[in-house]
Amino acid sequence: MKGLARIGQDEMGWVEKDKPKCGPYDAIVRPIALAPCTSDVHIVWGHAYMSDAPDRIVGHEATGVVEEVGSLVKDFKPGDRVIVPAITPDFKTVNSQKGFGQHCYGMGTGMTFITFKDGVFAEYFHVNDADANLALLPDEVSLEQAVMISDMMTTGFYGAELADIKPGDEVAVFGIGPVGLMGVAGAHFMGASRILAVGSRPAAIKVAKEYGASEIVDYHNGSTVEQIMDLTDKEGVDKVVIAGGNANTLSEALEVLKVGGTIGNVLHYDGIETIPVSALGWGAGLADKTIRGGVCPGGRARMEQLVKLVQYGRFDSSKLITHKFDKFENIEDAMIIMRDKPKDLIKPACIFDD
Amino acid sequence: MKGLARIGQDEMGWVEKDKPKCGPYDAIVRPIALAPCTSDVHIVWGHAYMSDAPDRIVGHEATGVVEEVGSLVKDFKPGDRVIVPAITPDFKTVNSQKGFGQHCYGMGTGMTFITFKDGVFAEYFHVNDADANLALLPDEVSLEQAVMISDMMTTGFYGAELADIKPGDEVAVFGIGPVGLMGVAGAHFMGASRILAVGSRPAAIKVAKEYGASEIVDYHNGSTVEQIMDLTDKEGVDKVVIAGGNANTLSEALEVLKVGGTIGNVLHYDGIETIPVSALGWGAGLADKTIRGGVCPGGRARMEQLVKLVQYGRFDSSKLITHKFDKFENIEDAMIIMRDKPKDLIKPACIFDD
Amino acid sequence: MKGLARIGQDEMGWVEKDKPKCGPYDAIVRPIALAPCTSDVHIVWGHAYMSDAPDRIVGHEATGVVEEVGSLVKDFKPGDRVIVPAITPDFKTVNSQKGFGQHCYGMGTGMTFITFKDGVFAEYFHVNDADANLALLPDEVSLEQAVMISDMMTTGFYGAELADIKPGDEVAVFGIGPVGLMGVAGAHFMGASRILAVGSRPAAIKVAKEYGASEIVDYHNGSTVEQIMDLTDKEGVDKVVIAGGNANTLSEALEVLKVGGTIGNVLHYDGIETIPVSALGWGAGLADKTIRGGVCPGGRARMEQLVKLVQYGRFDSSKLITHKFDKFENIEDAMIIMRDKPKDLIKPACIFDD
Amino acid sequence: MKGLARIGQDEMGWVEKDKPKCGPYDAIVRPIALAPCTSDVHIVWGHAYMSDAPDRIVGHEATGVVEEVGSLVKDFKPGDRVIVPAITPDFKTVNSQKGFGQHCYGMGTGMTFITFKDGVFAEYFHVNDADANLALLPDEVSLEQAVMISDMMTTGFYGAELADIKPGDEVAVFGIGPVGLMGVAGAHFMGASRILAVGSRPAAIKVAKEYGASEIVDYHNGSTVEQIMDLTDKEGVDKVVIAGGNANTLSEALEVLKVGGTIGNVLHYDGIETIPVSALGWGAGLADKTIRGGVCPGGRARMEQLVKLVQYGRFDSSKLITHKFDKFENIEDAMIIMRDKPKDLIKPACIFDD
Repeated sequence: MKGLARIGQDEMGWVEKDKPKCGPYDAIVRPIALAPCTSDVHIVWGHAYMSDAPDRIVGHEATGVVEEVGSLVKDFKPGDRVIVPAITPDFKTVNSQKGFGQHCYGMGTGMTFITFKDGVFAEYFHVNDADANLALLPDEVSLEQAVMISDMMTTGFYGAELADIKPGDEVAVFGIGPVGLMGVAGAHFMGASRILAVGSRPAAIKVAKEYGASEIVDYHNGSTVEQIMDLTDKEGVDKVVIAGGNANTLSEALEVLKVGGTIGNVLHYDGIETIPVSALGWGAGLADKTIRGGVCPGGRARMEQLVKLVQYGRFDSSKLITHKFDKFENIEDAMIIMRDKPKDLIKPACIFDD
Repeated sequence: MKGLARIGQDEMGWVEKDKPKCGPYDAIVRPIALAPCTSDVHIVWGHAYMSDAPDRIVGHEATGVVEEVGSLVKDFKPGDRVIVPAITPDFKTVNSQKGFGQHCYGMGTGMTFITFKDGVFAEYFHVNDADANLALLPDEVSLEQAVMISDMMTTGFYGAELADIKPGDEVAVFGIGPVGLMGVAGAHFMGASRILAVGSRPAAIKVAKEYGASEIVDYHNGSTVEQIMDLTDKEGVDKVVIAGGNANTLSEALEVLKVGGTIGNVLHYDGIETIPVSALGWGAGLADKTIRGGVCPGGRARMEQLVKLVQYGRFDSSKLITHKFDKFENIEDAMIIMRDKPKDLIKPACIFDD
Repeated sequence: MKGLARIGQDEMGWVEKDKPKCGPYDAIVRPIALAPCTSDVHIVWGHAYMSDAPDRIVGHEATGVVEEVGSLVKDFKPGDRVIVPAITPDFKTVNSQKGFGQHCYGMGTGMTFITFKDGVFAEYFHVNDADANLALLPDEVSLEQAVMISDMMTTGFYGAELADIKPGDEVAVFGIGPVGLMGVAGAHFMGASRILAVGSRPAAIKVAKEYGASEIVDYHNGSTVEQIMDLTDKEGVDKVVIAGGNANTLSEALEVLKVGGTIGNVLHYDGIETIPVSALGWGAGLADKTIRGGVCPGGRARMEQLVKLVQYGRFDSSKLITHKFDKFENIEDAMIIMRDKPKDLIKPACIFDD
Repeated sequence: MKGLARIGQDEMGWVEKDKPKCGPYDAIVRPIALAPCTSDVHIVWGHAYMSDAPDRIVGHEATGVVEEVGSLVKDFKPGDRVIVPAITPDFKTVNSQKGFGQHCYGMGTGMTFITFKDGVFAEYFHVNDADANLALLPDEVSLEQAVMISDMMTTGFYGAELADIKPGDEVAVFGIGPVGLMGVAGAHFMGASRILAVGSRPAAIKVAKEYGASEIVDYHNGSTVEQIMDLTDKEGVDKVVIAGGNANTLSEALEVLKVGGTIGNVLHYDGIETIPVSALGWGAGLADKTIRGGVCPGGRARMEQLVKLVQYGRFDSSKLITHKFDKFENIEDAMIIMRDKPKDLIKPACIFDD
């Protein structure tokens, strides 16, 4: 079979491999919708944290059709259309039992695609513990919607959940890339009364507003902190979701946060050794401001929980998709567009159900 | 001044009293919007738990204009338009410090109107601790909207909060009277993917759907439990809000609740000595189903938190009002209509800003 | 191999069976310490909820030596001494992912011993998902201590955890059988300032005091509710653990609980169809008193968490054992003594490491 | 009356002032036990954040006798012996209603002593909202014990509460000054199985062990992080309390914390502009490690909750006191010894009940 792989540093290409083998609890899935993620781009063209995995097939956002299941799989059978989460933990470990499947064997290891094995940008891919990690695709949910749930929706919503948003809260969301937009949606679905979204690209602003943003804070117009303080009568916001930014974003978030507030961070401070915390913002450790940050939880229960918002018509997760392709092979083009980030891009996707 | 009072058992009438006195932390408020509550009806025509308070003026849902403030009030001044919560705790007590202002001196005592002093159906009424218990009425919020926040919205939302609703949850709401409708809205604003609302009156069903109900379960069509189980493929729901019903509702709620689920109860089991809990529904005590029930929290912080959902355009709390009057004196008619409950009634209100 | 089984209603006896088979993720364990539980007694001499499983070997409290592991087991090997939890969930299911492994396939199904397969009162027994369900026995922990962790300590502590005990809380614990005594210890380890333990048997009272009970409330001396109210200046307690009692215990617990308090129930309301809730105690649904009840969580993470309290010298879980036997075959005597409940019994155990 | 004041930068001295006035809800208290705090030392000899309050009397740890109460005080009367919390919030504010009385008017403003008015090192001092902020001293509690509750016990325990310690957790406590020692005790009372306390002074180590420390980590012996990792088989700890250290302590805490763990910080990062967060320790924002930090909550409910641990014999809070004086005037000596920090000092106190 064919797959799109990281050949070497800064080099992506198609490889030919054997179809993966199916263990007794596993499934082999054939994709029908795929989307590249910024982290796929980083793997190929960024910090080379995978040098020991030559020709590793990339990709972790997929919806597919079950091709084969292991002998001990109970709830899925060949032909089932399924949402595949980006994070497919081994739920049997101690960390998983404590509620942290995303770190099942240690920090971030629930991301088994790419980290431990080939990813989903292949004609077939392997899913560990199918009963634990697949979710049936409801008829009401389109492929465009489904493939945006695997990582974007679950991660963005997780940011809002970490921020512990309550009905009526005023919320700032830093970053309106695809994850940040889902952070906006997550804040909206948890009852935020007002969402101040920090970003500037018109394509993203349009979707941010559709997903619930009340106002846009553009850092081109001056200090983000000052703008948010001005918009809130110098009171600041109740909660913050961090889904984009740079080394200073955590300090900015603390500075616009009311005492007693909470930050939910899903930004990967990639390539930064030390993240500075403004003592002023954090009350020198005494402002009762909580900082939480994590990886999106994966697994079946999470997917089933989130897909219901789409299934019952409350949410259209597909609005992120600005660039759509219709063949499996186009995943290469989608990766390149994700790398080049044209101005009108939020998220590319390949939808090739046939 | 004039006020509408409980004269005696089953007897309501107008009384003439002195304008209330204003202590150093207090405010005297002149109402501009009023609404009667089922509990006002119960006080006059139901169980006489106020026999020791002759000519007690009734009413606890009001929006008004500050007439006078005490010398130590900092944040309000005569002329301010304010939302007055139904529950106006003494926040200095031990129970209040523990987060239960609604029970500041003991069970339910945060309801100072009627319980300890005259209520709001008067030309002027007294508010204890004005800085702690009043909230400024934002310009964007209409009087119709404001007067529905004081008790209906805060109580209904509290039911959803007690039920600990998470994005994606399937939720059943028992009862679609005015509090239940706000329970539907609360569940919606906490991210319920699907809301099964139990009720039957067309006027309420219409608003239930506008507030987020996915489907209506009419008990005239058979067992509520069976209907909900059928609608959920025999799985039941993740959470339940109880805002109406009878002695058996708690057991029904437990029977449709998944293991690990939570019930948020805001129904007053009035006149019932023993509430039966179905061992089957509760797993004989072992199903990890949590039962919570309480009185709506009051006070300024709560009002400010909720009003923002209306102020920023996310919610129209006024849809409950089916019968509108435009004079202070009509509060008597509003009480009578509330008692007689015509089929098309959800909630009457008097709006008399002039 | 030999095992002690439920032969039929009211009939217990030894059966000869094949040694269980070991799947790729499983382990076969040879017990070295065993203890019977009241629920084992109920299975044989009580409500026959196992009529469809003839000659089912009973027992679910064991410590043992690993005899064999499946090919995919990573963390255990033959010869390892292990604590086996009473609840050994399939952690891959949706309920488990939500934090309710004890109900992995539905209500109570995490109890795989007896429910789905033979129990531990055999020369060898089967453990599903060994890496997920076994915990290494630390050298510092005796077999007497270890075998009391599997069910008694985890269940009793769970009662205290459900009750959400905070440092300084005054707590009532209903029932001082072996689970109730562990509820006392759990309350103590969560910081209760004062523990009122409801019970009467001298042997249990002695251990209750050693485990942290401040005072004993004996129902032979009058109303439990009145005694607790008298001891607390009519204030009641902050939290209640229910680990023993009858149909009325939930109402009594509510009546002695302060507003805003929480009940943690681990009592199985066995054979009771309807559990009455005192409207007075529960404030007719409005007292903000939370009722929680559940099955002890099992699995490896839980065992590892609890055993550390014993390992590091903070807790001696073996004080429950009043009757000790030293041969495997004596598990039959232990069952009979558990059934007959002599006055001086708390818990029998067989310790036969050799 | 006489009081010990900050006369100017680096200058402490006795001043003569009028006895404070008692408002209707207030009390005037005469101290019978006093203790200086590091923050008192900082006010006089450190960063001059009080330059605008000349001759401000210092001190915020006191137990006393009620001298006078306002006309609206209900629960206290002259002659009552009372514990006075260091933090005496105005519980009526919005922040207080949200559970953050310690920040009632904004960051740290619940500390009304010194910040807004004279402190407790005077012949008489003023307590706002007596019913909300005083707690009766139970007969069973000594003055030595009582005066250690006002700030030391509540602050140290708060660190453990912020860290969300659960029974069985392994915990590191950074700092074993008086607050850190109470952090050790707090961790112990929340059920820590093992407490690694970071410190080096023999006097403090002795008390740390009595309060529950399992092992001592001395930074003179090498890297704190490495020592903790070695002691935990490279696994790290479940929770961390930070009660002492320097700018790098937060990063060290993150580095020894397991994924999914929580830090409870009560250290004031005084004079530090930017607190560095190790990206490695925090998983570049993705390790699901929670950072919480705050000021001790004050008020009556908190004092009543904590004093019960002493009253019912579970805890002796007086072990902190290494240097005891017996006259009011000696508070000056106590301040000087607190400033000079001799090796054998944990905490000085003046006990002068007569």
